[in-house]
Amino acid sequence: MPLNILQLGGEPFGTQLSESDMRVYALKCISKQRTLSATENDNPFTVTPVSVTDDENQNSTDRIHPPLTFDIADVDDNGDTFTNNSITALLSSKFRDIQKRIKQYGLDSPRFRKRLVSKWESLNYDICENELHLKEQEKYKSKRKIAIKWVSRWIIMFLVGVGTALLAGAIHYIVEEIGHHKFDMLRNFLDRCAKEGCLYQPVLIWMAINLVVTITGACLVTYVQPVAAGSGIPFIKSYLNGVKIPGLLSLRAFVAKTIGVVLSILGGLACGKEGPMAHSGGIIAAGLGKGRIRFPGDKQLSFYDMFRDDHEIRDFVAGGAASGVSAAFGAPVGGTLFSVEEAASFWNQELTWRVFFSAMIACFGTNFLISAFSGHPTELSAPGLVRFNVFPDLSFDLIEIPVFLVMAVIGGLIGAAFVVLNYKLTVFRQKFLRKKWIKVLEAGIVASCTALAAFILMYSVNDCTDKHPTDHHSITSQMFCDDGKHNSMSNLFLTTPEGCLKALLHDPYGTFQVVTLLVFVVVFFFLGVWTYGLSVSSGVFIPSLVIGAAWGRMIGIGVVSLFPEESQFQSDVGKYALIGAACQLGGILRTTISLTVIIVECTGDISFGLPIMIVLMISKWVGDFITTGLYDMNVEVCGIPLLPWEPPPLCDEVKTSEVMSQPLTTFQPVENVGKIIDVLKHETCCGFPIVKYPPEHALDHPGKLKGLILRSQLTVLLKKKIFCQQGLLQPSNIHLKDFRDLFPDNIKINDIHVTEEERGYVMDLTSYMNPTPYTIEASFSLTKLFKLFRGLGLRHIIVVNSKHEPVGMVTRKDLAKFRAEAKRGLVHIEHLKIEDI
Amino acid sequence: MPLNILQLGGEPFGTQLSESDMRVYALKCISKQRTLSATENDNPFTVTPVSVTDDENQNSTDRIHPPLTFDIADVDDNGDTFTNNSITALLSSKFRDIQKRIKQYGLDSPRFRKRLVSKWESLNYDICENELHLKEQEKYKSKRKIAIKWVSRWIIMFLVGVGTALLAGAIHYIVEEIGHHKFDMLRNFLDRCAKEGCLYQPVLIWMAINLVVTITGACLVTYVQPVAAGSGIPFIKSYLNGVKIPGLLSLRAFVAKTIGVVLSILGGLACGKEGPMAHSGGIIAAGLGKGRIRFPGDKQLSFYDMFRDDHEIRDFVAGGAASGVSAAFGAPVGGTLFSVEEAASFWNQELTWRVFFSAMIACFGTNFLISAFSGHPTELSAPGLVRFNVFPDLSFDLIEIPVFLVMAVIGGLIGAAFVVLNYKLTVFRQKFLRKKWIKVLEAGIVASCTALAAFILMYSVNDCTDKHPTDHHSITSQMFCDDGKHNSMSNLFLTTPEGCLKALLHDPYGTFQVVTLLVFVVVFFFLGVWTYGLSVSSGVFIPSLVIGAAWGRMIGIGVVSLFPEESQFQSDVGKYALIGAACQLGGILRTTISLTVIIVECTGDISFGLPIMIVLMISKWVGDFITTGLYDMNVEVCGIPLLPWEPPPLCDEVKTSEVMSQPLTTFQPVENVGKIIDVLKHETCCGFPIVKYPPEHALDHPGKLKGLILRSQLTVLLKKKIFCQQGLLQPSNIHLKDFRDLFPDNIKINDIHVTEEERGYVMDLTSYMNPTPYTIEASFSLTKLFKLFRGLGLRHIIVVNSKHEPVGMVTRKDLAKFRAEAKRGLVHIEHLKIEDI
Repeated sequence: MPLNILQLGGEPFGTQLSESDMRVYALKCISKQRTLSATENDNPFTVTPVSVTDDENQNSTDRIHPPLTFDIADVDDNGDTFTNNSITALLSSKFRDIQKRIKQYGLDSPRFRKRLVSKWESLNYDICENELHLKEQEKYKSKRKIAIKWVSRWIIMFLVGVGTALLAGAIHYIVEEIGHHKFDMLRNFLDRCAKEGCLYQPVLIWMAINLVVTITGACLVTYVQPVAAGSGIPFIKSYLNGVKIPGLLSLRAFVAKTIGVVLSILGGLACGKEGPMAHSGGIIAAGLGKGRIRFPGDKQLSFYDMFRDDHEIRDFVAGGAASGVSAAFGAPVGGTLFSVEEAASFWNQELTWRVFFSAMIACFGTNFLISAFSGHPTELSAPGLVRFNVFPDLSFDLIEIPVFLVMAVIGGLIGAAFVVLNYKLTVFRQKFLRKKWIKVLEAGIVASCTALAAFILMYSVNDCTDKHPTDHHSITSQMFCDDGKHNSMSNLFLTTPEGCLKALLHDPYGTFQVVTLLVFVVVFFFLGVWTYGLSVSSGVFIPSLVIGAAWGRMIGIGVVSLFPEESQFQSDVGKYALIGAACQLGGILRTTISLTVIIVECTGDISFGLPIMIVLMISKWVGDFITTGLYDMNVEVCGIPLLPWEPPPLCDEVKTSEVMSQPLTTFQPVENVGKIIDVLKHETCCGFPIVKYPPEHALDHPGKLKGLILRSQLTVLLKKKIFCQQGLLQPSNIHLKDFRDLFPDNIKINDIHVTEEERGYVMDLTSYMNPTPYTIEASFSLTKLFKLFRGLGLRHIIVVNSKHEPVGMVTRKDLAKFRAEAKRGLVHIEHLKIEDI
Repeated sequence: MPLNILQLGGEPFGTQLSESDMRVYALKCISKQRTLSATENDNPFTVTPVSVTDDENQNSTDRIHPPLTFDIADVDDNGDTFTNNSITALLSSKFRDIQKRIKQYGLDSPRFRKRLVSKWESLNYDICENELHLKEQEKYKSKRKIAIKWVSRWIIMFLVGVGTALLAGAIHYIVEEIGHHKFDMLRNFLDRCAKEGCLYQPVLIWMAINLVVTITGACLVTYVQPVAAGSGIPFIKSYLNGVKIPGLLSLRAFVAKTIGVVLSILGGLACGKEGPMAHSGGIIAAGLGKGRIRFPGDKQLSFYDMFRDDHEIRDFVAGGAASGVSAAFGAPVGGTLFSVEEAASFWNQELTWRVFFSAMIACFGTNFLISAFSGHPTELSAPGLVRFNVFPDLSFDLIEIPVFLVMAVIGGLIGAAFVVLNYKLTVFRQKFLRKKWIKVLEAGIVASCTALAAFILMYSVNDCTDKHPTDHHSITSQMFCDDGKHNSMSNLFLTTPEGCLKALLHDPYGTFQVVTLLVFVVVFFFLGVWTYGLSVSSGVFIPSLVIGAAWGRMIGIGVVSLFPEESQFQSDVGKYALIGAACQLGGILRTTISLTVIIVECTGDISFGLPIMIVLMISKWVGDFITTGLYDMNVEVCGIPLLPWEPPPLCDEVKTSEVMSQPLTTFQPVENVGKIIDVLKHETCCGFPIVKYPPEHALDHPGKLKGLILRSQLTVLLKKKIFCQQGLLQPSNIHLKDFRDLFPDNIKINDIHVTEEERGYVMDLTSYMNPTPYTIEASFSLTKLFKLFRGLGLRHIIVVNSKHEPVGMVTRKDLAKFRAEAKRGLVHIEHLKIEDI
């Protein structure tokens, strides 16, 4: 077998190389940045099929030659290159390009939104059609087995819906009950102290409660599972897009997320419980799909394993996320669309039905539970956690559309400001607030400040009203008002953010003065900006809606004062608050069709859908003109390689060869165990092409591609000791179950122990490799490469030359780093930097 | 250049072939059915790169050798095949398989749902990245140009929405106005004659009106553009799936469709105007996207050409179809989903926004126009053509769910019966009613029978009521009733089907007796079955809803009679009618999420969404258990190669080599003009691989794949005479514009005239071919092949062996013919037959 493992950094040319080889090598050396940089790092493995000897069991210590990577400009039989340029001209121009890019990167200090972080891997949706797989498929030729699998999927989706509904009901109940008691207690303190003049006491108690509760929640998130921080929607979105996020769907994340969000809200933070519901629903679905509960310390309860691959679990998670959204907003269609929008490249009708079904069950179940809490289980009057409640007479006139448009523009502008400020804050946090205890402390400080701000506002804004709030359970404090009146600001602060939203939407005209609302909007805006991105479990939906509803109501009051004689406008302040809320949400989040449908479903009235759609679209456009949406900003800051919907424009000239990673580490169909272990220890790739080297040719031929083996497969094979001495029969006591038992985690290569003797053994990979991996030719354009990736949901693709010999690999990160950039009237392609953090 | 054009049907082995060649050939001959059957047809062209001579300008007359097609079981360098079987065993088993299949096919007499019709081509979404394309891309590097293109797309989408709204408004106005006069006149006749006893007169007048009007509409459709028949939704669905349907988006189809549907409804047929709206909207969009109006006789008005490729036009059509649905039902979200569901493999957010925008504009515009007709343009109270109107107090109790479930099952069963009967009728029509005049006549007969049936029912069912219909414009005939009362059947028949639906949903309890409804359901059911599939422009939405609403109302009356003391149930008959309508629609059409959303949007009340979703799902399942949906049945009967959402199950063992078409016709990069013309005349493929034959090898090597050229490109090149004598400089006076001017039609090859001298010229295809066509290896499984096709929206893919030499092509039809079939507890793969009709 003609294989050499060549050491990097040795003498530039080994003695076994002929002059023509040297020429080829020289060309290759300048061809790619990666080749150049590879000589400087300490990676000792570049496996290349360029040996001149036929030494079969090459020892891995025999590394004396310089690296030879494969040429991308493949010279075909007739001597012309497949691009029409001469190789040298092409390569030197590329070289200049690359040099320039390196310089640019070097000059840039941390650009949080212009980088990708290398730790994010992709999920693997490609089916490995090896012998084990085909053997299992054979079993499923029976109609009964197919039916069982089909029914199981539906049952799991049903359970996902039920589970999500139970969770939503439980969270709702706890938050409402305890929250009510908390604010009732505070009201008593406030009222009593307003009379007695002991104002420091209630504010200190309030701050202390918030501090303690929030710090508990922050500790839970920070120390148990940091990925549970925030709303979880950006992460779920990324997951559905195909990015693997470690720990996202674990039991720990579930605990941190659900208990965390209860504590955040009870801790008085300006946040909602809706975003986290999508994440929690996803975790429930993943758990049910895997059919396994894993406890800390490697113990696990396993029930079934037939759905344990990324593809199936992704489908369940889509259903779970949809259920979560559906339970939160009472929006089954909106929830389904939410999932589908992200997972669209893999959408199919059957899956959509299942997702829709589970969303429906979740909505229905939540409705039932919440109705049951209020004592009327069969009335089904509360379809979701948040509901804008029914507006008695929601209709609009054509004349109002211009007002709505203006509001949409305002919403877009305020939204953009929110995103920009939050971005600055996030960068600040990433730079300076990196220690865990500081993160917890910050959350505590925000919670205390929220209480302080609320108290100061209630104290300073002397807006007394005698109108009763629509919700009879809502708590109002009299403070310094006359008897029979109450402080209108207390109506907004002595409640959870959801109660606040309801008050703004539904309380009668005259409850709030313009000044009250103005001060409230400003303060709540900054609180919202500060809260989002804390290391607590919290959603940004409700704060956005509250901000929008407040200034929407202000505009409503303005409209009323323009037409003081027409009293029917007075009932319309709620309508304007609703439009304002929609505008603000559109301006901050910029979600799309799904958001529109969610809001329309929340409103419960289709006829008002049209103006809502219009304002959401305008506010999105206005916001997009200034900056990206909040979730997208989040994704960018985390450096997640999200693949966009469309290939970056004007990439027809960029070739796959410029995108791919080189040099390539390959294995032979029958490979030395020691070499496999060494490669796994030093390489981070998750897939290795398997090539069969032709016996007669040497330097120019990397060998025929035979298949692809994944890192996760290799580690399982090594762990199960599926190898033997040369010439003996390899054990085959391994089944698909063994691979699935270890899904989705890879075994760490350092946990595998192999004796020195076993290192000399060989492993026959042919039965386990994927014999038909997707490949692409090096001459294909980036556009086509992108379409392949997006259309097939790929994790990596092998780049081959025109002889079907592997010359490189492209991963999701290699693709995601291309982004269009407009500068001085021209459009360029920008390359993001890939960083290791 | 090593090329031979070998004639079929000559002596089995030419003299130039060696013994080993003969052995290889013998193996190959039995390898594929296509090779065998090819020797029997009269196709003289099988271009194979197997010549032993190096004759450069081979004359096309030199055809004396038998065909040699390429081996699919590629023998690689080391002598082992890539499957692990020996070639002979593999091939002989395949041979037996194929023989068996041929026998099966031979025995089958016309199986309308088990075939594909070869005339349906695919659309081409792949971008040909040749030099012309790259040159154009260069232009778009300027930000301004990109912005112009972006804005143009939005403007066109806006215009699509406006156009659809105008059309919907116009159709609505005409149908309502003239329909009202027609039925008013009939009422007068009926009432007068009931008194005078002259009963033959009105029925004859009625039948005559229907006959004349319907026959006019049928003539329009049958003789102007037959593709305009029916609702158009199955065709639009197929188009969005990627099937090219000639004439579907032409001006003729638009005229036939829109005028046809007006005439159908005025002709009294049991049909609606909603389905055709989706088709009309699609045509408007395609016309605006192409920026060109073509009149009969090759005249055309061209405005812009930048969107003239299948990909862009598909996007616009998606918007147009969504607008049509949105205008018809006042359901922008539902319309968007309708488009997206079919075009999902190409979905992206930006496109969805545009589609949604145009749907919104259409809904809004229709609303405005219809409101304006009724005199209140700014009230915006009529969002669509059909609207279930607002139910004053639509709520449900948990106890009602079981009743709804039973109704869903009934709906599914009746729906399945509808589909089965209509299928039988369709097969009968396809067998016996093939002549155009017979089709027209049948439409006339159905229209007369509808009038006759209506009259007989009104005459025989003596159900008099004194309740006034909700709609004050509706026409009721007194017939033989006492003064102050009217014949309740007249309320259902003296109106358009939409008016009938409204009456069933909203008329007060007691308007209809159970017997009336029962007779009506039965008669209308059969009329509906008979009407769908006539050669007229007609939709099946409304008839389905009417049938369902009628029996739903019956059940509602039943519920009321169970609880005679509780009068609040009386107002619920409308609710049951609504649920019945939804069940029936779900049972007949089985559309999915989009349908659900459409119905919910029609209802205008979200809180009632949940039961509607549940019944739609159940009725779909029940129906699916018995037969496919009506639209799917339509698609199957037409033999349209629609690609399903998922690959057929258990296809991991079927290899691409068993699917692909052989033998392959290829061109060289520089090709003889005479040969190109001859090949185009005799081959029907729409794409030809371009290969460069290696000079030294001979028989086994088809040559390296260099690119792909489309038939449509070749015809344009030939027409523009882009060729020259060997050695001279080829003219290059051709631009992308020339290709676009002729989009989407191919020039007929017989219309191209080339002198005998020019036949000897050569054409250099390298600048015009697609240099990077998608390829797949012959060893890939059908599952992977399917995913590639579906994910990338391919029209055809080149199959290569492991040396990257083309060995076959796979088209959409080759894939669509695989379908899973369950038999005796096992699941098999069924192959549909591809027929030429």
